[in-house]
Amino acid sequence: MPFHDVPRFPRGFRCASTNCGIKPEGKDLSLFASEVPAAAAAVFTRNHVAGAPVIVGRELVRGGRLQAIVVNSKVSNVGTGDEGVANARRMGAAAAAALGIPAELALMSSTGVIGVPLPVEKIEAALPALAGQLQPDPMVGAEGIMTTDTYPKAISSSVGSATLTVVGKGSGMIEPNMATMLVYAFTDAALDAAALDRALRKTVDRTFNMLSVDTDTSTSDTCVVMANGLVGPVGEATFQDALLESFTRMTEMLARDGEGATVMLRVTVTEAADAAEARTIAKSLVNSPLVKTMVFGGDPNVGRILMAVGKCFGCRVDPERIGATICGVDVLADGRRTAFDEAGLRSLLRTDPVDLEVRMGLGDAQARAWGCDLTHGYVDENAAYYSS
Amino acid sequence: MPFHDVPRFPRGFRCASTNCGIKPEGKDLSLFASEVPAAAAAVFTRNHVAGAPVIVGRELVRGGRLQAIVVNSKVSNVGTGDEGVANARRMGAAAAAALGIPAELALMSSTGVIGVPLPVEKIEAALPALAGQLQPDPMVGAEGIMTTDTYPKAISSSVGSATLTVVGKGSGMIEPNMATMLVYAFTDAALDAAALDRALRKTVDRTFNMLSVDTDTSTSDTCVVMANGLVGPVGEATFQDALLESFTRMTEMLARDGEGATVMLRVTVTEAADAAEARTIAKSLVNSPLVKTMVFGGDPNVGRILMAVGKCFGCRVDPERIGATICGVDVLADGRRTAFDEAGLRSLLRTDPVDLEVRMGLGDAQARAWGCDLTHGYVDENAAYYSS
Repeated sequence: MPFHDVPRFPRGFRCASTNCGIKPEGKDLSLFASEVPAAAAAVFTRNHVAGAPVIVGRELVRGGRLQAIVVNSKVSNVGTGDEGVANARRMGAAAAAALGIPAELALMSSTGVIGVPLPVEKIEAALPALAGQLQPDPMVGAEGIMTTDTYPKAISSSVGSATLTVVGKGSGMIEPNMATMLVYAFTDAALDAAALDRALRKTVDRTFNMLSVDTDTSTSDTCVVMANGLVGPVGEATFQDALLESFTRMTEMLARDGEGATVMLRVTVTEAADAAEARTIAKSLVNSPLVKTMVFGGDPNVGRILMAVGKCFGCRVDPERIGATICGVDVLADGRRTAFDEAGLRSLLRTDPVDLEVRMGLGDAQARAWGCDLTHGYVDENAAYYSS
Repeated sequence: MPFHDVPRFPRGFRCASTNCGIKPEGKDLSLFASEVPAAAAAVFTRNHVAGAPVIVGRELVRGGRLQAIVVNSKVSNVGTGDEGVANARRMGAAAAAALGIPAELALMSSTGVIGVPLPVEKIEAALPALAGQLQPDPMVGAEGIMTTDTYPKAISSSVGSATLTVVGKGSGMIEPNMATMLVYAFTDAALDAAALDRALRKTVDRTFNMLSVDTDTSTSDTCVVMANGLVGPVGEATFQDALLESFTRMTEMLARDGEGATVMLRVTVTEAADAAEARTIAKSLVNSPLVKTMVFGGDPNVGRILMAVGKCFGCRVDPERIGATICGVDVLADGRRTAFDEAGLRSLLRTDPVDLEVRMGLGDAQARAWGCDLTHGYVDENAAYYSS
């Protein structure tokens, strides 16, 4: 699929970002808008403690139409009770008013610290000017939604004559379920909300739901797709393929920028007894602290692969059939360590990406999961992350 | 319960340890023996990839009688196929021969790197001399079974006129299931194998099975109890109480000596809807990298507690009812952050133990789990751990 060298928006979409005073410095507020109302679908976190924007967002997206998304970073508006919900509505209403659109077409997201009140007045004060600064570079919007991300993330590609643009953020508290951190996909293809919803759920399940930086599922995970139809119809299957390629790439960007990560870890499980077990085993490997530190240390302690497969109690495992390769090098065969070149493997383990493939020898189901190494940087960022 | 200031063995038990050449330096082989055959029970890892000593051990313990345990450290004899099983049997036979007892009364354990052949000749060569060095201090045996442990672990206490002594090891690859790392309990009380088995399973479920250093379930977990009866009968309930107190203390020793740990984290979940959910939520909290790094950083980012409760998808959670205390200080009430003294809490989070209590407000079930903070030390030890 032809990804563009420089990401750009589909026809009719623009964005802006600014510092509205929630962060001491750096952008903390972004606005994304379509010229015309768009068909829309979204999936949100399954965390029982859902943020106020998730609670309101679930309600809004039922209408199947959105025209704008307003997002702040630094404060997540989670664990904030009824005031939090009221503040989320105020934030959406302020964006809608600034754009001159109905309030029910403006979705809001917040990301950052949990349990702190949202400084909604700052957001309300900034939105009128921000609506006047809408411009065509999606990276500008990506900048305003960053928390511990080290760089803004946006990609775009062509789908027939239409364009698909994905803007995302997220690097810690990431083991999405139903969706990921914050990911917004925009297209000028014409698809109805039901088709978008089908494509979104199917694709998220194979991409963001197979990503784990640290096993911790955020309270704010949100993934939205908006189609404003300005360039006309695109076949549903074609669109699904494009969405899968784009979300796979965004998943890899999020994995690679995981908190403290130095390399992306991509785990492929093949020959599993069934698809659900393949997913469970792939997740077990990508989440194992001992596998993750093995990658960070560049130490081919491949017995840890056997351990992480074996601890999937609910899965069918025959230890004598397990095989594995790291970056194409056989390290396990029939459950035994092979006589691989250790020095060579050490250097492969330190080269991005690290591809770990595990063969179960039981069937033909497979799954892929994405993650990263576990490093001093992860400990530093999370031992020091501002909490109040 | 009266724990002894200096651990000692029950009547009739002795041990010895030595360096037999598997480690370049330091003890790597221990032998524990009773003067007479003892009633015995054991539980082992549920990891599908079980070590050779676990495979052989399950078979041996069916007899309900043991007289000796031989343990080496550094190489775990896991992922070693049929030769591994043969080597485990050779190791047990050598211990039995050195002690002049039947081979089926000698249990063997191995702990260390996975996937490397066991140097069984070194063990066989060392055992005759080792059997001549049996002595009464259990700490000597505890020394020979250490891997990344920073100190040897043994405790003893009185149970009526009998003594109960527990020797253990383990600090990484620890989220036991069915048992923990290597823990051996010895008593001179008289109990039959069935009573020991009941006491063991019940107690392990409330202690070692609620311990997690890093979510990684070892392939070698073994917990054995031997009762040689030399001081006569003790009531089953009395013995169970003593075992629970001893295993709780050993669990806390293992948690506190978790790889890289600077403090023990003890999580108590109360008012849960049922006991299974209380356990799941307690484990989610004790395993969350973001909760663990919060403790390491002494940063009262208490929203992470809400996140770790909320991600228990299968449990009943009402976000508006969640309350929490850290070392007795209220930090969450009705799902909201309280106005606690931050400076005070920072210092409490850096003082061992860190007690986190979470109230679910839904019922009266409770559970306790043990773990530790996530630190640079964990990353260092596991990025560098010798693999081959």
